[in-house]
Amino acid sequence: MRAVRKVLVNFGGINPESLHRLSKIAEVVESQKFDEATIVSLLPQIDAAVVLSWPSFLTRENLARMGRLGFIQTVMVGVNHVPFRDLPRRVVVCNNSGAYSTEVGEHAWGLLLSAAKKIVTTYASVKEGGKTIGSFAGEERSITVLEGKTMGVVGYGGIGRMVAKYARAFGMKVVAFNRSRRKDPGVTFLYGREGLEKVLATSDAVLISLPLTKSTDRLIGASELGLMKRDAILVNVARGDILDQVALYNHLVANPSFRYATDAWWFKEGKETLETEGPFTSLPNFVGTPHTSGPTGLARGEPQRIATENTIRYLRGLKPRNIVNRLDYSEV
Amino acid sequence: MRAVRKVLVNFGGINPESLHRLSKIAEVVESQKFDEATIVSLLPQIDAAVVLSWPSFLTRENLARMGRLGFIQTVMVGVNHVPFRDLPRRVVVCNNSGAYSTEVGEHAWGLLLSAAKKIVTTYASVKEGGKTIGSFAGEERSITVLEGKTMGVVGYGGIGRMVAKYARAFGMKVVAFNRSRRKDPGVTFLYGREGLEKVLATSDAVLISLPLTKSTDRLIGASELGLMKRDAILVNVARGDILDQVALYNHLVANPSFRYATDAWWFKEGKETLETEGPFTSLPNFVGTPHTSGPTGLARGEPQRIATENTIRYLRGLKPRNIVNRLDYSEV
Repeated sequence: MRAVRKVLVNFGGINPESLHRLSKIAEVVESQKFDEATIVSLLPQIDAAVVLSWPSFLTRENLARMGRLGFIQTVMVGVNHVPFRDLPRRVVVCNNSGAYSTEVGEHAWGLLLSAAKKIVTTYASVKEGGKTIGSFAGEERSITVLEGKTMGVVGYGGIGRMVAKYARAFGMKVVAFNRSRRKDPGVTFLYGREGLEKVLATSDAVLISLPLTKSTDRLIGASELGLMKRDAILVNVARGDILDQVALYNHLVANPSFRYATDAWWFKEGKETLETEGPFTSLPNFVGTPHTSGPTGLARGEPQRIATENTIRYLRGLKPRNIVNRLDYSEV
Repeated sequence: MRAVRKVLVNFGGINPESLHRLSKIAEVVESQKFDEATIVSLLPQIDAAVVLSWPSFLTRENLARMGRLGFIQTVMVGVNHVPFRDLPRRVVVCNNSGAYSTEVGEHAWGLLLSAAKKIVTTYASVKEGGKTIGSFAGEERSITVLEGKTMGVVGYGGIGRMVAKYARAFGMKVVAFNRSRRKDPGVTFLYGREGLEKVLATSDAVLISLPLTKSTDRLIGASELGLMKRDAILVNVARGDILDQVALYNHLVANPSFRYATDAWWFKEGKETLETEGPFTSLPNFVGTPHTSGPTGLARGEPQRIATENTIRYLRGLKPRNIVNRLDYSEV
């Protein structure tokens, strides 16, 4: 008889119901209940792991000791933090796509409207004081009305689908770029390099909602920005590194009517940071929230629940959802 | 044969097509083309007037000289600036309800999401500098997710209907208070004082979108605010004076989770002003744009076009739309 399988859980705040359900099928090893030496000694017995971001104790050396590891599930939606090159090919890695669609979709729409209606800049100006309502006359000419305009969605996963739904309610036309074929009523799908260029060129607002992979790293640079409408609004709720930072900064300076609204920041030494290469926050056509959309989902507990359910699916011998193609992230 | 009728047009930027259509049925007197003495001399011949806000030359004395005046159409949606007590009862006054629904509805949703997602406050904090993404940990617990929550609409006209549509796309339940009976799929209507109280008490977000009349002046005071959820978001795109200013300020100070997001400011000596009785802009749970939503509509020209069309309807002997009940504004 096979020994009871062990699941490493490396995130705080697993809800009692998920823990209970997971415990029925495997022995749960909650990393925060042990010191590092103990965890490391348990690694050879671990069959599956549910991680938030990549645990620092899962070094290349320690991974090599995990002979039974067959499955990794991330609680974060993206897996760009997973060291694929150090993982044997037998290990199935699942992302948590769709688990944050509501929170991130709503946040994206808030960023879009903040930029479209100039809420941040006009309020900053009101706050300074000494202004009259009349002194804002003319401001309304630079405010974007969404109805009748075109929403472009770059990466049509769960978040893209939510935003497309909002866009349709706002009376917008929706065009979407996606790698794999999709179908959704009221959405025109475009594929390939040409499809991406068409979405960028024809949209009044563009949402970036695709994973950061080898092929999306700096997907949007100077030439792609140059295709976009001069007064377009670009919203990023995915990863900063999908955009070329310097090209974006230059584009914002050169095109004051173009707006960039983001919840995602660039990585620096493997860590997302508010430090940027240009003084973005001094530009009136930039607005950025400190990556609060995803954590809002975590605060509600849904991503943790969904990640646990998918792990249970694997442990039951069923095909888990959201299996990642490692070649999107690594050469091997 | 009756003399050609004369229409006073008192707003800039009437579009050529509207001017052309109006000219076919009446002689158009564009006030900005004449000096005040000339305009005043023409007043006795004026049959109808299309005004933006109330023209300063239409004093009580001058109004008394307008023996032929039968119709006034405002380009602004509200008519709270019209001096009903100085107007003979025969004069039909029409507001411009519905002409700004898209612009104001979109703006309202932007204000709601700005407050819900704390976009203004977190960005201000990012902008200050010296912060890390990690330093915002915990912030997400005070961010409101709209899906599954209840949207309350106080005043279900054109703007209310737009916002209800957005709310349904966001997966919200919609309850609405209105004076007259309404019907709309997916919206629960409530009436009377009890209905208003129920909307306030059960909603997670409340939109104020009713006209400022005798009965809505300070409709929301300390006791009404006290009925609302502690962490509710109140959005005002109507008129500041629907809320009791001091009561609201005290409520925001006493309830840091409660948020107020507005595009409408209070009147002072008959004029909307950014000067407030309390230092609202120093509160993190306040955000206010300088009444930019309506002008966005004017910049697109639609309200002017709709106002002109309604005036043509009157001149053709048809019943115009949006006739105001003067008793909502005046005792006589």
